[in-house]
Amino acid sequence: MSSVYGKIKGGVTAPLGYVSNAVSAGVKNPDAERLDMALISSEVACVAAGTFTTNRVKAAPVKVSQTHLRDGDVRAILVNSGNANACTGVSGLQDARKSARLVGKLLGVKQSQVAVCSTGVIGLPMPMVRIEPKFDELVTGLKRKEGTSVAKAIMTSDTCHKEISVSLDIDGVKMKIGACAKGAGMINPHMATMLCFVTTDAKVAKGALNAYVSDAVEVSFNRITIDGDMSTNDSVIMLANGAAGGKSIRRGTKSGKKFQDALNYVMQEMAKSLVRDGERVTKFVTVNVKGAKSYNDAKKVAEAVANSSLVKCSWNGNDPNWGRIIHAVGYSKAMVKEELIDIHIGGLAACLGGLEANVSMDDLRKKVAGDAFTIEINLNLCEGAYTIYSSDLSPEYVDFNRSEYAYWKQARKDGLTKQ
Amino acid sequence: MSSVYGKIKGGVTAPLGYVSNAVSAGVKNPDAERLDMALISSEVACVAAGTFTTNRVKAAPVKVSQTHLRDGDVRAILVNSGNANACTGVSGLQDARKSARLVGKLLGVKQSQVAVCSTGVIGLPMPMVRIEPKFDELVTGLKRKEGTSVAKAIMTSDTCHKEISVSLDIDGVKMKIGACAKGAGMINPHMATMLCFVTTDAKVAKGALNAYVSDAVEVSFNRITIDGDMSTNDSVIMLANGAAGGKSIRRGTKSGKKFQDALNYVMQEMAKSLVRDGERVTKFVTVNVKGAKSYNDAKKVAEAVANSSLVKCSWNGNDPNWGRIIHAVGYSKAMVKEELIDIHIGGLAACLGGLEANVSMDDLRKKVAGDAFTIEINLNLCEGAYTIYSSDLSPEYVDFNRSEYAYWKQARKDGLTKQ
Repeated sequence: MSSVYGKIKGGVTAPLGYVSNAVSAGVKNPDAERLDMALISSEVACVAAGTFTTNRVKAAPVKVSQTHLRDGDVRAILVNSGNANACTGVSGLQDARKSARLVGKLLGVKQSQVAVCSTGVIGLPMPMVRIEPKFDELVTGLKRKEGTSVAKAIMTSDTCHKEISVSLDIDGVKMKIGACAKGAGMINPHMATMLCFVTTDAKVAKGALNAYVSDAVEVSFNRITIDGDMSTNDSVIMLANGAAGGKSIRRGTKSGKKFQDALNYVMQEMAKSLVRDGERVTKFVTVNVKGAKSYNDAKKVAEAVANSSLVKCSWNGNDPNWGRIIHAVGYSKAMVKEELIDIHIGGLAACLGGLEANVSMDDLRKKVAGDAFTIEINLNLCEGAYTIYSSDLSPEYVDFNRSEYAYWKQARKDGLTKQ
Repeated sequence: MSSVYGKIKGGVTAPLGYVSNAVSAGVKNPDAERLDMALISSEVACVAAGTFTTNRVKAAPVKVSQTHLRDGDVRAILVNSGNANACTGVSGLQDARKSARLVGKLLGVKQSQVAVCSTGVIGLPMPMVRIEPKFDELVTGLKRKEGTSVAKAIMTSDTCHKEISVSLDIDGVKMKIGACAKGAGMINPHMATMLCFVTTDAKVAKGALNAYVSDAVEVSFNRITIDGDMSTNDSVIMLANGAAGGKSIRRGTKSGKKFQDALNYVMQEMAKSLVRDGERVTKFVTVNVKGAKSYNDAKKVAEAVANSSLVKCSWNGNDPNWGRIIHAVGYSKAMVKEELIDIHIGGLAACLGGLEANVSMDDLRKKVAGDAFTIEINLNLCEGAYTIYSSDLSPEYVDFNRSEYAYWKQARKDGLTKQ
């Protein structure tokens, strides 16, 4: 994908003043050698902002990080994969706080300056016996060039690591934004089992950073869907340490707009990469809705189509089934007039005015057989528009998600659960 | 399932004064011999009521039947499987009206006295050249004992026909209720690609019948979900001809309550049979929510759990994954307190107070491995309760729904579509 931003290497350690490291703590499996715990830290004081799952069942680290971001001066992010520390009650909260305290001590900062994130299975206690002894190695090994190892350590069922870093120029000052993310399962609008960490050496006040992050999430992570589920652990956390120098970037200015655009781009690239690497996903589908009565109506239509199991099954089978698309449009609760609905698939008209268009099924099929295509739905009523990024639903997705039982059995043997 | 009602044979022709017939018109496939067109008719004048899809994209027969039920004295129901006559524009409406007119003429009644229903693929014109010549055979063959053939003719991807008939006694008068239904795909609360026809020889006024049907649908067809999709064609139509004699059954009386209970039972049995025979379904799952702040909150929780792809995948894999259930509870938008949530699976506590219960995983797994079990979720807040009937999601479901392309190709050759 082309970009107006210069892409650079380094991920979350591309911006000035950040160090990171990742280690193997055996969180999920004591015998596995894979990286599963990571730390990102700003070498200088910074401001931080975060956006978290709207699920009413929130994981312990989400609750702890929300408090730290509100009350503290967060400058480090501790993360593990393999265990979500969700539905773990008071002891889960204690584990999350203890981790922040111990790592903070080694970093020479307060407990409230360390945000904590976890991703993995719900309902099992954190294996603190394996995690705690690794904190020393984690902090001692912090380097300015370990961004990619963080991206790797947060993977769960992801098949590849995801990171990006860009440089931009604002008022003559060169600055950078870096990010890494993980996704794979439970991807849905309004945050999912996904983590995204963003760093920048731009100078931004805390209030402004909150607004920049919130706006960027709205046009990126809230626009993707894989399976319609929403996780207990979703977190986007951003650090801004001002190490690039220059004046503070302010909202409502030309510079602020430029910064927002760059941040949107970074988060959109991360969000799209999550869809592409969704569990057993074979297609990346952009659903564009326009001509709706309102923005909200366009959103309802886009979400109904992008989350319909039957529509997603047809995409998996290379089936240009506009009948299923229009039936999802119909039940979306948006105002629609059947006889005005146009549907284009990969630029070809499949349905015009609610009726089958005069088009070759073979041509339509070729579009849906591609690994990326766009569905455009024009309601022809008004100006409301919305875009969402979706995927197909494959038999392999269901098969992949049929059972975690074997893992739980192992956890019993590990002594992590009650019997 | 035990019942207080005497089950009898006959389906929609069990009540007095009804005749029916089914023929093979080759609607979907001219070479297939299967029954695909049927007619139910009351021999005497009757009242009729219907409930239809809330999808804003409605099939032509739905629009026509709604008008006939509002303005006419419907006493016959014409139905075909194999083609939904949906997204077929003005010519689709003409085809539906013409069918009602021609069949009405043969029956000696007005066009507006015939309701029309269709189920099948969306977006293809009705093959009237094959349908029209069969009307004569359909009407000529009407008999008092052909109820079961109607149940068979409306099947699409159903693997078995569904019908029921019961007898009951109200104020010393013996009366009967009969029904048949089809489901299989796109089953979701608030009506789905399902058809259900109900007949009774009870004497009921039109306004009261509307209310009885509406209340029965609310506790039956609106409580089932297979894939979260909602069709363009869903229809429940009921005829009441008073042939059993006696006084008119009135709302708000003891007799009215008895009639409502019997009708609820009939529709619930039909609704449950649709779930059991859902596309590639292997399990029948009852989701009971109680202790919610309100009825609506309980409904939100039940629907979120019953429609979660991840939860349904785990059921398919015999995985007693209460973590996925509680995460769906959390995103349901109902008021919940994590630390108060109890989840029982097949009567065994899986989660108590938001934490893993002290239970054997193997025992839990045995419950989920059964072909029918109940998930009970107690929010422990207040008195709101709701029950929904759901199923698992199988790799075979996705595979089954991947493509209708081959069928469309055949339709082209048939000359049914534009090229």
